[in-house]
Amino acid sequence: MAITRHEPAKIFSKVVEANGFVFTAGIVADNLTQDTKGQTQQVLAEIDRLLKLCGTDKTKVVSATIWLTDIRNRDAMNESWNAWTGGQNLPGRACITAALADPRMLVEIQVTAAK
Amino acid sequence: MAITRHEPAKIFSKVVEANGFVFTAGIVADNLTQDTKGQTQQVLAEIDRLLKLCGTDKTKVVSATIWLTDIRNRDAMNESWNAWTGGQNLPGRACITAALADPRMLVEIQVTAAK
Amino acid sequence: MAITRHEPAKIFSKVVEANGFVFTAGIVADNLTQDTKGQTQQVLAEIDRLLKLCGTDKTKVVSATIWLTDIRNRDAMNESWNAWTGGQNLPGRACITAALADPRMLVEIQVTAAK
Repeated sequence: MAITRHEPAKIFSKVVEANGFVFTAGIVADNLTQDTKGQTQQVLAEIDRLLKLCGTDKTKVVSATIWLTDIRNRDAMNESWNAWTGGQNLPGRACITAALADPRMLVEIQVTAAK
Repeated sequence: MAITRHEPAKIFSKVVEANGFVFTAGIVADNLTQDTKGQTQQVLAEIDRLLKLCGTDKTKVVSATIWLTDIRNRDAMNESWNAWTGGQNLPGRACITAALADPRMLVEIQVTAAK
Repeated sequence: MAITRHEPAKIFSKVVEANGFVFTAGIVADNLTQDTKGQTQQVLAEIDRLLKLCGTDKTKVVSATIWLTDIRNRDAMNESWNAWTGGQNLPGRACITAALADPRMLVEIQVTAAK
C-alpha cells in the first residue's frame, strides 16, 4: 500500500493518493475579491490541477462536498459547477453551509476521485 | 478501474460506485412537510434503494455524515436512525448542523458503503 | 470483502475498516471542560487509539474533516493539530464550522486513513 502526498504545506496536503482513490483538501479560491461564481471557477480549476497531479481528472470524481457561507449563493455556485461538469460524469454531491477560515471565502470544495 | 454512476440528474448522480466502494449524494426527503423523524425515514428509505441499485445494502455502510438544520432535532433523527440500523452493523458517523438547500429540509444524509 | 467494526455503541461504531481504508466516526473530547486546544488534543489522542485498533496510524491518514463551533478557534485547534502531525504525512483537510451535539463541544474530527 503506497500513499502519495502532493504539495504538503504546513497544515495539510493539497491532495493525497491511496488505494485507487484521490482525496483533495477542502479547496478555496486564491483571489477572494471575486463573487461566488468566480470563486467557484477558481476552486474547480485548482481541483483540475490537483487531479492531474495524481493522473486522474474530473471525469473520475466520485463524491464532492461543497460548503457555502450563504445557501442563497447556491445558484451562482451551480452556474460554475455545471459549466465545469458539462453535465457529464456527475459525482455524488452534498452542498451545505458553514463558516470558512476567512470571511471573504464564499465557497470551499472537497472531492474524492477514483484513479 | 470502472466507475458506475446511477441516476445522474443535472447537477449530481444519486449514487456512484468505484473500487469496491459506493458513495451516495447527500440525500434529502421528497416530502418536506414531514418533521425530522419522518424526513429521516424518507432519507434512509431512499438510501436503501440507492444501495440496492449498487448491489449492496445498509449492513455494509462504513461511514455516514448527517446534517441537521437544528441540533435540537438530533434525538428525533436518531429515533429513525436507530430503527433503521437495528443497532447492527453500525457505521462511523458524524452528526453536525448546516443550512440546507431549502428551508423546509431538516436533515440530509450522505453515506459511503463497501460492496 | 470484509468489514470490521470496532467499538460499536448504540448509534455508531467508533471506527470501521473496509477495502484497505479505515473510517473513524466524528470524534469529540471526553472532558468538555477543556478549551479548544485541550479538546483537540483529546480528540487526536482518541484517533491515535482508534487507528491503532485497525493496525494503522496517523502517518497513513489521507483525509480529515474538522468541525469547529467557532472559526475563531482555528488557530488554537491548529496548535494541537500541528503538534500531532509534526508537519509530516499531512492529509487533505477541510476545516469548517457547525454546531455540535453538546454546546460544550468545541471541535469534532473525522479521519479516513489507509492501511
